[in-house]
Order: sequence, then structure tokens, then C-alpha cells
Amino acid sequence: MRNWIISVILLFFSLIIRGQIVYHDASIFPLLGKATQSTTERYARLPDSLKSISRKPLWELGQNSAGLAVRFRSNSTTIAAKWEVALDRNLNHMTATAVKGLDLYCLENGKWIFVNSGRPSGKKNTAVIISHMKPQEREYMLYLSLYDGVISLAIGVDSLSYILQPAVNLPIQKKPVVCYGTSILQGGCASRPGMAHTNILSRWFNREFINLGFSGNGKLDYEVAEVIANVDASLYVLDFVPNATVKEIEEKADHFYSIIRKRRPDSPILFVEDPIFVHTRFDQVIDKEVKDKNKTLHVFFESLKKRGEKNIWLLSSKKMLGDDGEATVDGIHFTDLGFMRYAKLLYPIIKKRMK
Amino acid sequence: MRNWIISVILLFFSLIIRGQIVYHDASIFPLLGKATQSTTERYARLPDSLKSISRKPLWELGQNSAGLAVRFRSNSTTIAAKWEVALDRNLNHMTATAVKGLDLYCLENGKWIFVNSGRPSGKKNTAVIISHMKPQEREYMLYLSLYDGVISLAIGVDSLSYILQPAVNLPIQKKPVVCYGTSILQGGCASRPGMAHTNILSRWFNREFINLGFSGNGKLDYEVAEVIANVDASLYVLDFVPNATVKEIEEKADHFYSIIRKRRPDSPILFVEDPIFVHTRFDQVIDKEVKDKNKTLHVFFESLKKRGEKNIWLLSSKKMLGDDGEATVDGIHFTDLGFMRYAKLLYPIIKKRMK
Repeated sequence: MRNWIISVILLFFSLIIRGQIVYHDASIFPLLGKATQSTTERYARLPDSLKSISRKPLWELGQNSAGLAVRFRSNSTTIAAKWEVALDRNLNHMTATAVKGLDLYCLENGKWIFVNSGRPSGKKNTAVIISHMKPQEREYMLYLSLYDGVISLAIGVDSLSYILQPAVNLPIQKKPVVCYGTSILQGGCASRPGMAHTNILSRWFNREFINLGFSGNGKLDYEVAEVIANVDASLYVLDFVPNATVKEIEEKADHFYSIIRKRRPDSPILFVEDPIFVHTRFDQVIDKEVKDKNKTLHVFFESLKKRGEKNIWLLSSKKMLGDDGEATVDGIHFTDLGFMRYAKLLYPIIKKRMK
Repeated sequence: MRNWIISVILLFFSLIIRGQIVYHDASIFPLLGKATQSTTERYARLPDSLKSISRKPLWELGQNSAGLAVRFRSNSTTIAAKWEVALDRNLNHMTATAVKGLDLYCLENGKWIFVNSGRPSGKKNTAVIISHMKPQEREYMLYLSLYDGVISLAIGVDSLSYILQPAVNLPIQKKPVVCYGTSILQGGCASRPGMAHTNILSRWFNREFINLGFSGNGKLDYEVAEVIANVDASLYVLDFVPNATVKEIEEKADHFYSIIRKRRPDSPILFVEDPIFVHTRFDQVIDKEVKDKNKTLHVFFESLKKRGEKNIWLLSSKKMLGDDGEATVDGIHFTDLGFMRYAKLLYPIIKKRMK
């Protein structure tokens, strides 16, 4: 009888403990997607040195955690998170989950599988991402917010389980792909962080992609070219045309390119045309703008070719969004449907060109 | 010289007038997607008579304008809208544009083409949806908010243009398809109103689809079966399993079905399985729930077959979301990627079964 009572008491306490979630600061785990380690804020994308150099909106967007992901492993039946965002931003054409939420994937037979998203409630957030799992060890990747900064992050696991450094070095961090561009590159307007196209491609290639997308500010700032050039990448994707004006392309693209080329004489560099935004079919002003910019990009690209530049390519945007006009939320920004189509277009090209 | 001055003055005034947007109350234009005309509020989905009958959350969701669309034609170079929503709701996994915004399509050679979305700012909204168009006559369809009620709506065109009743009767309103279901059916979580799968299918078939999706409340309420039965539909799609419990399916599905069947003895009725939510791969509780519900649905469906019911079908959800696990925002609610896949799955089945 006494043993029986003790057993019941033990079971009771173990259930209570099992039910408790213990949070572990994520700063001890590997972080993917950074172009530089010279940041005071862990989840920032631009080096501290640029604070006094860069235009203010560019610098601030550098504090958004687009494309960053934390790697860990655990045998917990539940994965939860506590995180605080910098700005608590709201956008009317993008979910809060994508703007300032989290997104969890799990490695199964070498493939990354969506587990669930961490949905935000405000500046300080707590969310159970997944529960009721079998208590078996899994490798996880947790994508961070696309359009806000993550100030702090802790990962919650049930109290009887462990959380450890990843045992598998995937996605590989050696020779990442570096992408430079605009709001679209930054993930506008995916439904959750994992659906930004660089994150999709990172999973498909099982290779680190670095997202240097700056909403409205992919304007060929030279100090960003220096940041890009400092990364020894397998491929550089320059996808700035939606933000750069004709004048900016004419005046700045060559020097921007040269900064990278000087540092990386043999690396492949892929330029990307302005997307043919779906409302160009109706809006004559935006239609002309896209045509003018792409013409300017082609003139610039041909000038590079003529002077003998090697390992450069230009991607047509003709098939980028499919042919049904349905892949954006506002004519410009890609939905998950658009990002999936763009990722499928880029995949074979990146595969062919990366070194 | 005098003529020249007069010309300049005239041009100046015509530019001012051209630049002005004049708003026209949308209540004079045809409204698609309603199961009943017995509503005091124009943009509501359930008849006034249900206010004292239905459960409160169900009644309130009936005031959301999911699946409703206004038809008009105009030669304006700009299309704008002023609209007021009932609740000014915010959801953390769905864009405000889908929750309480608008979505404009245009008919070109018999096909509906996305023009742009009307992005909301709050309870009272004004948005220019598209501008800089050639001043030629076009047929338009304006989808209303999916997860809020539209209290008032006015369509803005430039002051030198006209806005008129549509000249083309598309999508045809005769023998619509009626869909009954849950949050997913109501459009959770499309990026904009036009991407709810009933709206996609309506465009592809050029036929009216009636959306009777009630977030969290597709619980086989009999009074809704009466509303459904009152519509002479080409097909009834019953997609309630995500919301109905095993007990509710066992106790209520037969009577719910019989209300429709009694009124529509020969009409085709398509039952739909619970989606295999992508996190069922990890969450054992939701996995068991989906399996139990689908088993219950199959038992019910077989009982209908056994007693000789005709013109009934059961759609497997096996291929509903694709096989990459990427088509939801939260494991449950479909993104545009998910809705496009679901629409593609449903299209040939609806085509084959509709009468």
C-alpha cells in the first residue's frame, strides 16, 4: 500500500514536471544566415561599423532578422519559444507571423520539413510551436522574424527532455549563397518566415543562404557591397532592380559590382531583372518603369560583358511569377505561391552557376 | 495669345477634374455569392431570420462578407474604394488585406485577371486600387473582406469616366456551387480575398460559388442546412469535418444531409475529408483526431450508400495540400499556395459532378 502511494505521488510529480516548459537562451546555439559576426545585437544583419555610415532606414532594416535561423536538437515532446521583437511592427499586407513570428523546421532523412510556426502576440511573445510529439531526438531549424528585429530568444522544451547543439552540420555553412536586394528578398510578403525564397532555397540546397534584402532600400549602397564582398560565397545574387531607380542603376551598379568583383575575382554573380509586376498589365506608369529599369540593367550588363567581365549572368524575370497573375498580394510583393514559383525558377540556375 | 491662355486654363481644369475621384455607392451593382436575399445588411451571408435561432458566433460569422463580390463596368483610369468594416479585426496569421480588405479582378477574353488589392487601414478605409490605366471600358469584379463584415462600400472612378451595370453576365449566377464548411472555406488564411479557393474556382468556372464557411463553426447546424437547401445549386460541397467533432458527425451529419436531400432529391453532394494537417506528422493528438474524424465520415458515408442514397461522393484529402508540407501558415490554415493546390484538386471533380 505504501509503495503504491509513493508510486502515485512520483507519477503525479513527474507529470507536473513533464508538463513544465523550461526555456533556454538561444544565444548558445548556432545561428545561420549572417554575413558578418561584427554585430553587438546577435540577430542583426549589418555590422556595427555601418551604424554611422549607412542611411538610417537601411541601417534599421539591417536590424531585422530576415533569413536568420537558429539550429538545435532536442528530444522534447513540445517545442515552445519566448521572444521579444524590437519594433512590434504591423503591416497590412503581410501576416504578423511572417513580420515578427518564428517558423520551425525539422530534419528528416536529410530533408527539412515544416513543423509549425510561432505566432506572435505583440512585443513580448510566448508561443507553443508544437506539442504531443513522440519523445525522440530531432534536429531543428528555427527561422526568425522577417520584418522586425529579434532582441531576445529562448527555446522552450519540456523539463524531462534535453536541448543540445546540433549533431548534424546542415544546412552547410561553407560557401553560402549571398543575396542582395529589396522588400521581396526580405520576405515580403511570405505567410511565415520559412517561406521567404532564400529560406526555401536554403532547405532545398541544404546550404546557408544569406539574406541581405532591405525593404525599399536595395539602392546599391557601396558599404553593403563591402559586406557582401567580405563573404566568401558560392554565388552572389544581385536582385536590387525593384528599388534602384534608372539613375541609380546607371550611376552606382558598376561600382557596386566592382567592389564585389575586386575582392572575389572568380566568383559567379547573378543579376536579376525587375519582376514583371502583375499590375503592369493595367498600370501604364509601373509598366514603363519596369521596362525602363530592365533596359537599363541590360545596358549595364552588356557593358560588363563588353569589357570582358567573366562569371556574370542575367536572369530574365519572364517566368518568375508564373502566368496566371495570382502570385502577389498587391501586384508587387510575392505570396507563398509567388515565392515557391520564384524558388523553383532559381533552383536550377543557382545549381548550375554556384562554385 | 488669348486662345492659348484659354487652352491652358481648360487643360488645367480638365486635369484637376480628371484627378478627382468620385465615389458611387456599390449597393446599386450586382452582388454575387449570396445564398439568400433575406438580409437587412446587404453584405451579409445568413438570413435575418437566423439571428434569433443560430448560435451567436455562427450568426456573427454570417455577417462576414466571405465569397461576396460586386460586379460593375467602367472606363475609368483609376479604380478606388471607400469601405467601412464592422469589427476592424486583426488576426496574427492572416493579412489585414484578406481579413478586411478588397480584391479587384478584371475580365479579359472571358478570363478573370487580378488587377490589385484594396489594402485596409482600419475601420473606415479609402484605397486607390489601381491607377494610370488606359481609359477603356472593362468589366470588374470586386471581392469583399473574408473575415470581417462590410457595412458600406463605395467605388471610386475618375470624374470624367463612367461606372455602369455590367454588360456581361459572368460569372453566371444560375445554378451556383454551394460550399459549406469552416475557417479554411471562409478563406483562412489567403493573402487577399480573391485567393479563397471558392473565389479561385468561381473564376475558373466562370460560375457563382456561394461561400458558407464559418470559422470554427462548421458544426452541422440544421438551420444552415435549410439555407443551403433553399439554393438550387449545381453541386453542394460539404466540407465541415475540421470543425465538427466525431460526436457531432455521428449525431448530426445524417439529419443535416437529409435536410438538403429532401429539398434537392437529385442534386450532387460532395463530402470532403478532414485535411491531413501538415503537423499531424509530429503532433500525435491532432494526427489521431484527423484519423478518427475521417473514419467517422467514412462510416457515415457508407451508411448513406447502403441505404441507397444516390449522387453522393466523398473526396479524399490525401493530395489536398501537396506533399511538401509547405502549404499552410500554421499547420491548419491554407496559404495562397494551399488554396491554389486545393482548387486544382477540386476543379476536375466539380466539373465532373456538377449538374
